[in-house]
Amino acid sequence: MKSQKLGIIGVGHVGEHVLAYASSSNLFGDIVVVDSREELAFGEALDQDHATGLLSRPNVNIYSSNAYNDLSDADVIIVSATHVYPKGEVPADRQQLITNNASIIRSIMKNISEVTQEAIIIFITNPADTVIYMAANEFSYPKERMMSTGCMLDSARLRYIIGKHYNVDPKSVSGYMMGEHGYSAVPILSRLSVAGIPYDQLSKHFPDIKPLTADEVQEKVVQAAYEVFDNKFGVTNAAVAQSSIELARAILLDEHSIYPVSTPLLDGEYNTKRPVAFSTPTVITRQGWTKRFEVPLNEWETEKLNVSAESIRASIDLAESLL
Amino acid sequence: MKSQKLGIIGVGHVGEHVLAYASSSNLFGDIVVVDSREELAFGEALDQDHATGLLSRPNVNIYSSNAYNDLSDADVIIVSATHVYPKGEVPADRQQLITNNASIIRSIMKNISEVTQEAIIIFITNPADTVIYMAANEFSYPKERMMSTGCMLDSARLRYIIGKHYNVDPKSVSGYMMGEHGYSAVPILSRLSVAGIPYDQLSKHFPDIKPLTADEVQEKVVQAAYEVFDNKFGVTNAAVAQSSIELARAILLDEHSIYPVSTPLLDGEYNTKRPVAFSTPTVITRQGWTKRFEVPLNEWETEKLNVSAESIRASIDLAESLL
Amino acid sequence: MKSQKLGIIGVGHVGEHVLAYASSSNLFGDIVVVDSREELAFGEALDQDHATGLLSRPNVNIYSSNAYNDLSDADVIIVSATHVYPKGEVPADRQQLITNNASIIRSIMKNISEVTQEAIIIFITNPADTVIYMAANEFSYPKERMMSTGCMLDSARLRYIIGKHYNVDPKSVSGYMMGEHGYSAVPILSRLSVAGIPYDQLSKHFPDIKPLTADEVQEKVVQAAYEVFDNKFGVTNAAVAQSSIELARAILLDEHSIYPVSTPLLDGEYNTKRPVAFSTPTVITRQGWTKRFEVPLNEWETEKLNVSAESIRASIDLAESLL
Amino acid sequence: MKSQKLGIIGVGHVGEHVLAYASSSNLFGDIVVVDSREELAFGEALDQDHATGLLSRPNVNIYSSNAYNDLSDADVIIVSATHVYPKGEVPADRQQLITNNASIIRSIMKNISEVTQEAIIIFITNPADTVIYMAANEFSYPKERMMSTGCMLDSARLRYIIGKHYNVDPKSVSGYMMGEHGYSAVPILSRLSVAGIPYDQLSKHFPDIKPLTADEVQEKVVQAAYEVFDNKFGVTNAAVAQSSIELARAILLDEHSIYPVSTPLLDGEYNTKRPVAFSTPTVITRQGWTKRFEVPLNEWETEKLNVSAESIRASIDLAESLL
Repeated sequence: MKSQKLGIIGVGHVGEHVLAYASSSNLFGDIVVVDSREELAFGEALDQDHATGLLSRPNVNIYSSNAYNDLSDADVIIVSATHVYPKGEVPADRQQLITNNASIIRSIMKNISEVTQEAIIIFITNPADTVIYMAANEFSYPKERMMSTGCMLDSARLRYIIGKHYNVDPKSVSGYMMGEHGYSAVPILSRLSVAGIPYDQLSKHFPDIKPLTADEVQEKVVQAAYEVFDNKFGVTNAAVAQSSIELARAILLDEHSIYPVSTPLLDGEYNTKRPVAFSTPTVITRQGWTKRFEVPLNEWETEKLNVSAESIRASIDLAESLL
Repeated sequence: MKSQKLGIIGVGHVGEHVLAYASSSNLFGDIVVVDSREELAFGEALDQDHATGLLSRPNVNIYSSNAYNDLSDADVIIVSATHVYPKGEVPADRQQLITNNASIIRSIMKNISEVTQEAIIIFITNPADTVIYMAANEFSYPKERMMSTGCMLDSARLRYIIGKHYNVDPKSVSGYMMGEHGYSAVPILSRLSVAGIPYDQLSKHFPDIKPLTADEVQEKVVQAAYEVFDNKFGVTNAAVAQSSIELARAILLDEHSIYPVSTPLLDGEYNTKRPVAFSTPTVITRQGWTKRFEVPLNEWETEKLNVSAESIRASIDLAESLL
Repeated sequence: MKSQKLGIIGVGHVGEHVLAYASSSNLFGDIVVVDSREELAFGEALDQDHATGLLSRPNVNIYSSNAYNDLSDADVIIVSATHVYPKGEVPADRQQLITNNASIIRSIMKNISEVTQEAIIIFITNPADTVIYMAANEFSYPKERMMSTGCMLDSARLRYIIGKHYNVDPKSVSGYMMGEHGYSAVPILSRLSVAGIPYDQLSKHFPDIKPLTADEVQEKVVQAAYEVFDNKFGVTNAAVAQSSIELARAILLDEHSIYPVSTPLLDGEYNTKRPVAFSTPTVITRQGWTKRFEVPLNEWETEKLNVSAESIRASIDLAESLL
Repeated sequence: MKSQKLGIIGVGHVGEHVLAYASSSNLFGDIVVVDSREELAFGEALDQDHATGLLSRPNVNIYSSNAYNDLSDADVIIVSATHVYPKGEVPADRQQLITNNASIIRSIMKNISEVTQEAIIIFITNPADTVIYMAANEFSYPKERMMSTGCMLDSARLRYIIGKHYNVDPKSVSGYMMGEHGYSAVPILSRLSVAGIPYDQLSKHFPDIKPLTADEVQEKVVQAAYEVFDNKFGVTNAAVAQSSIELARAILLDEHSIYPVSTPLLDGEYNTKRPVAFSTPTVITRQGWTKRFEVPLNEWETEKLNVSAESIRASIDLAESLL
């Protein structure tokens, strides 16, 4: 008889926000923060612990640890660890991050695998798709129990941008990005709708609003990432951290929600030449993920998705060369 | 400098649940409960007031009143008043309710109009479409500041049923019902999608699941209402009450969310022969509603929607004959 | 790997509210509703299920069952079953309820015990203290895994009344009722404070407000129950249901919160002549309850608590005579 | 008819967390972020805006501005601006901060005063007590509409420390710190209780736990601040940000909650030799603050509070010399 437990590995800008949202979610009674920067982990846990003295906060047991053994009974583990660059020197190209992050992820997966095979692992670490590919393929950890937030964030940005364009709540926009989390993410406008109206028919219902082309939407979503990244001096954390907690809720409540997370492609899926991982709508349950959708795409989308898959594969090749 | 205020008119089974969800929503600092059954209103308010002694509850000022003047500074008014039938004798046909509810709604609208023209009014009272038509057309209250929850509930049921059928979270189903709230509500399957995949292509992605026909879906949604209604001895309250608070949030936070609420049709909309009110996707803001979508429909949907409009019109005729 | 599960036994006015608050608490992924009135249980579960079609709701799996086996993996069970009287004929004296409720509770405990010894059981059924005494002493179920909401509700009322009297948030009042849940509940004013100021010194800080005597406070709290009960025609449900969910949260998050719940007295505690159960501040954890406080009392409180204990004991004697 | 609006002035580590908690609080439909670092303000607002694309998030309108005019219709303004030191070089002594922060606060107050006198202003900027003293005395802005979070954070730490010591939920500890926010904050153990039991009698109820002396408690609370501050390289943000949102809720819902915020002392209060501002339990309403409690203290507390008041006064003298 134990409370549900969250492990957070890596408590930089992203992990700090993951901790903030998790602490008041009612989902976890125990949160353990693991970071090689032991002082920082201790400080972040303590700061949130102090908040338990407020009446509006549940009394969650939050603590830091440098022992993976504390994760042995975790229900969910969120990995937000990343190589720490000097402020403002984070490489904007997520794929470049792999040079440093490959060994970090391998070390984390090795450590987790030694203490549990039960926790559902959510990766935020970039490059998201390469990370989940490595984690799923280089370790014997059950594949269905791990995923990367992948295009959940890109998709939130897509809905925000379309919502803003048409002056409606982003929640009223049904749609997502697919492929790589980052540069080459693909807006799937052929599957997007507002009030059930397909994207290409929206101009009839919003006669005064000039529609954006697929290229413009793609550019705007990718641009949105860099507007946050550049203006926050190399940090994007608030929205992605909330994405991971939305996933954690779907997992713990067994919601069977469909989210565009990244996991390795299934055999023959999307006709990719070589195996990769990327985001496609995926069913999230208490067991991890249980189903990936192979979505019908138009020509533009197919082409862009191929480009995206190749970009991811190049990163995977790089990661594998570092083994 | 005042807190946001909610007025609840009618605190039977539905109003009691509206009060419950509103009390802990953080949206309102003041909630006034109005009911001609003064004792009941007093008791319901007091029961929730007692809960403010719990640490998990905001200290909301909840009280009952039989003076409409207490609504003069309300931001939102939810009308859940209805004629009270003996237990188990509520007429299942919502249209029959109009005989008794017409005068109730007229009296409420008259009373509200004398004290405010500013509050956004959300009607739950049935028959939903007739009620909003009367309220909007028989009074000079600004039309855009009133709506009926209409097919919000039917749409939640639709998503629940489709979600259950395909074993996915109803929130991952994008879709809605249109037309009358009740018997003749129409599932708009041509606009429904799961993971962005149109309804008629779902069987490719769920090969083991037999798709439901439009007729079957319509029957199941209408049936769902009666399964609750019959098994709860004439009551359906939990889901519709939550719908109204979701609307209240959209209003107070100016979310511009699109919900299938019922308001009077605009000129020429949907080619109805005579003016009616029914549910179609509608943008909800701090000003009330600002836009109705005229959704493209297929033949089956068009036909069913016409039937639905006529059914509503008959009820409106009945209501008008009672003037 | 399963979601946390709640069982609700008895889904009348109280259980319906328990279900409402539990469904959106993020604490449970599974909720099973058990009631001998199978239709009603089905209807209540279905009504809440429909609400999962709303975007603001987690997709919780809510269903009814008449098989206790569905409770075998429950984490928490809330018992709100009670003998159903005709409307308005509920006996106001909670002790009289025992004549009918004793066999109901015995049957429920027998059924639960056969399928699990792990769930933490929260009783709401009245008479609260007799019920928990019977459940704890007549069955081999681990005693620390069961409690009655007891004076949690009376204490919320106390804080509401004191808060109202001094025009401050009830959450800013620290204090509780002890003894029986009901008629003879005792306000422990010697332990009550507002802003850390003891009750008997409040008049210095609120010179314009006439303090209430202990007798007046006791009368007002007991009266508050009957004001709700009478005005709602024999029902008090909203505040007590929320109390039970506040307890469920303390349990599942292992909060170690101190709440005035009812459990059997420990040996020699409070010098009662014969064994009883009543409310005293108690530490609530993932294991159930772990510590009861024996609170220092003044003369008035001691005397009233003795009266209360005798009243409870008489009810227990009655319950035992029905074995 | 407008949504409730929050202004956040200063969006460094603290303001970023204020924004995070405010965005999902349901309290605000509009949040405007003001910072002289326009890029950062833009980036922080945009990151949270992207999160509105998640289903679990209300669609709040979040934007940055460098025009105070955008605050003219704010309901609440939270000031978390502070002089920005190089990382790790923040002076640990909060009073030293005044040299740089005095002009920042004066500029902010001047700017706010020109556009509104209606918003309730919550200061987080340090040194908290000097800041609120200056803001209240040097400007004609209504004094009751401004406060500093002051000892709300120190008090949360106190309850956390006592809760941890006795292994109970901090929410079950009633108590607070008074005086300066920082070094000389005073634990008021004569007013602290656990389960209604005064601090000096706790050892009877926890025989195995050695009680902490008042000096030890004071040291531990002050130490707690530095443990966060040092380990987070000069940052303490999570708990104080949540404190400010708890206050915002109390204000907007008119909760009349009592919190230990800092405001200028009333005439003759606490017999301080010269006018200062410090934290004492204070009633928070929609109008700002309406009542300060002059709490009875023991000798140790009186002495420590005098020391604290003198420390604050020295800082105020310094601030006034900078005019």
